[in-house]
Parts: sequence; C-alpha cells; structure tokens
Amino acid sequence: MSLSAFEVDRIKHAPPIEGVLPAVLGRWSPRSFTQQEVSEKDLAKIFEAARWAASSSNEQPWYYLVGIRSVPSHAATYEKIYAALIDFNKSWASAAPVLILGVARTKFAKNGSDNAYALYDLGAATSYLTLQASALGLVTHQMAGFDHDAARQSCNIPEDYALGSVIALGHQGEPSALSSEKLVAMEVAPRTRKPLTEFVLSTWGEPSTLAL
Amino acid sequence: MSLSAFEVDRIKHAPPIEGVLPAVLGRWSPRSFTQQEVSEKDLAKIFEAARWAASSSNEQPWYYLVGIRSVPSHAATYEKIYAALIDFNKSWASAAPVLILGVARTKFAKNGSDNAYALYDLGAATSYLTLQASALGLVTHQMAGFDHDAARQSCNIPEDYALGSVIALGHQGEPSALSSEKLVAMEVAPRTRKPLTEFVLSTWGEPSTLAL
Repeated sequence: MSLSAFEVDRIKHAPPIEGVLPAVLGRWSPRSFTQQEVSEKDLAKIFEAARWAASSSNEQPWYYLVGIRSVPSHAATYEKIYAALIDFNKSWASAAPVLILGVARTKFAKNGSDNAYALYDLGAATSYLTLQASALGLVTHQMAGFDHDAARQSCNIPEDYALGSVIALGHQGEPSALSSEKLVAMEVAPRTRKPLTEFVLSTWGEPSTLAL
Repeated sequence: MSLSAFEVDRIKHAPPIEGVLPAVLGRWSPRSFTQQEVSEKDLAKIFEAARWAASSSNEQPWYYLVGIRSVPSHAATYEKIYAALIDFNKSWASAAPVLILGVARTKFAKNGSDNAYALYDLGAATSYLTLQASALGLVTHQMAGFDHDAARQSCNIPEDYALGSVIALGHQGEPSALSSEKLVAMEVAPRTRKPLTEFVLSTWGEPSTLAL
C-alpha cells in the first residue's frame, strides 16, 4: 500500500472541532520534502509571524540562523546545520531546502540578568513560525536530534545563547520518496496526543472537572 | 483622552501583511478584563489547540493547572495562583476570571532521562493556547512575575516539573477600568517588536541577505 502526500495529510489532520484554528489542527511534521524552494516572500511571512509572539518583558530573545541550500549567502549555514544533525535526521532532512537553527539569548539585553524564559519564548515564537508555514501550504519539522556542541562551534554561537531546535522547512513530498520503509511507516502513521484529562488539571494530579 | 477597548485593539494590531495569520497579528496581552466568565466550551477549544502542538519525541510535557474563580472545584487553585503573583500583577490580574499555571515535566516519561526541551515545548503549546483564545475573541496575558517557590509549594508541584508562566484568561475590558494611570498608559501603548533584520541571520551576527 502506498499513500500519497494528499492522503497522508488527511490521516494526520486532527479531528476537526468547530472554532479551533485550522492551522493548528492541520499542521504536522513530515519528513518527505520536494525539491521546491521556499520563496523569499514566504520566508518573510514566516519570520513575521514569529516576530509577533509574546515574550517575558517583551525581550524577544529569539534569533534564527537560516540555512538555504540555493542561496549563496545562506548556503554555508545550511551545510553547518546539516552536518550537526544525528544520522537518523540526516537520512531525511537532506531533502529540505531550508534548515533553520533557533537560538535564544539567555541574558536580558537591558541589564544582563538571567532570562529564565529564553527557551520558553523561543519555543513560542517558533511555534508561530511553524503555524504560519502551515497556513502558507509549507511544512516544517523541528528536530532536537543534533550535536549541540558541534552546531554551537561551527555556527559561532556565543555561550550566553541557548540552542533551540533545528527546523526543516519546505514543501511536503510524497511518502514514497523517503529512503527507508521505517521512514515511510512513520510518515503515514496517525498523529497521537494525550487526552485533555491527562494534562488539564483542577489541582495537581487531579483532572479538571470541566466538561472537556 | 480615554480610548475604548475597541480603539485599543486597532492600535495593538500588527501592521497587516497579506497571508500572515490574523490570530498572530491581532493577539496581544491586555491587562483589563471584564467580569464575564469563560465558557467551558471555549476552555475546551483553548486546551485542544495546546494539545496539538509539536514536542520533542512527542513527549507533550505540558500540564495546565486551571484556576477558575467561579467554579468550586477550580476556585482554590485560582486563589493559590493569584496569591503567588507579584504585587504589580495582582493589581490588575484580580479582574481575570481564569488564572492558569503552565507546568512542564522535565524528565521523559519513557525512561526518566532529562528533557532539555520541556520548557521550550510548554512555551509552544501555550502559544497555541493564546492564539486559540484570540481566535475565539478572548484575551490572554502571560506573566513570569510570580513567586515560583510559593506557587510550587502551594500547588504541590513536584521537583521534576518546571514552572512556566501564569496565564490570565478572559474577555477584554475597557482601559478605563484599570486601577492606575500607569496601567492605562501601558494598555494603550502600541506594541513594539524588533525588525526582522535583527533576528533573522545568514551567519551569526550577520543579518540575512534575503529581501525581508
């Protein structure tokens, strides 16, 4: 059985609930990418969405190192980010035309004190970025699986900046384009999430009594 | 000069860009809330949006302790969260009908190893929650300003869970309902963000050469 990208999108879609944002329900993290480039216009929109995220004291601690295979000034960064990925991620992410490394400044710009919310806020901004990509018909796949020390060194990230995820960005490819049976199986498996009763609590350890 | 909630919403709206998600551009963090309760239906949608966020290894490390002033089983949690706020936040957040404490499990459920992305993923899920609230016509305001030790103790949060933000949730009130001139001035001030060239980089320290 071989499923098309279109059919997989239907499998991955969260059960629709009236009033819940379509971009939230439809976004998922493919590993198959086409060769199609991401336009500068779309890149601008994606970062614009990240820009308007909330942050502690409006610090906006997020930075994005953007690797683009086909753009000369961004190509070396693409190679550096790619080189830091673990082998499993290398096996599919090489198809993505864009690899972005998210970075968070861990000291407040105003006074140099520790910002305990740096990674939290980077996670927030990046999730806006991924939603915006989805709304534009693009796909993203965030990875924690990379050699953080190697990426920090090759990309010259100073010590007081924390590394977030590597984000593969591009256009969704056919599952059959993936290089192994294992990858294909992961690509077509339904998304799973905990029920609300496991994480919406009235007091610690007690599921909420609301009708969720 | 006194501005209405409606007029403030226009001031706070990010400059519209075609194709950028309206919920992203329109969301902001008011401090004035009306007395109106949040319906259980809306609460379910808000947490449903958080549920579908991405997370490292699909761990879904997020938990939400939900304080609701008017719901008996959630009222004690409301009081505990409120009591932990710093005085400045107490001065306005008392009007919000719902106060939520976000919490992230810092060890992977499958093997107990450290999850370095726990707070990052909580930030992501919470940002979906805030966007969804905005899409439903509700407002949120996240706060880092609370006594973390006091909240941990009064809410019985175990050591291997990290505290995220406190989220005030409700319906937007009139700026004039706020209790001080300072709060009113903050409520009506335009939102500010860094330009894309400050955080979208080609190599470390170098703004991207893309046309952003």
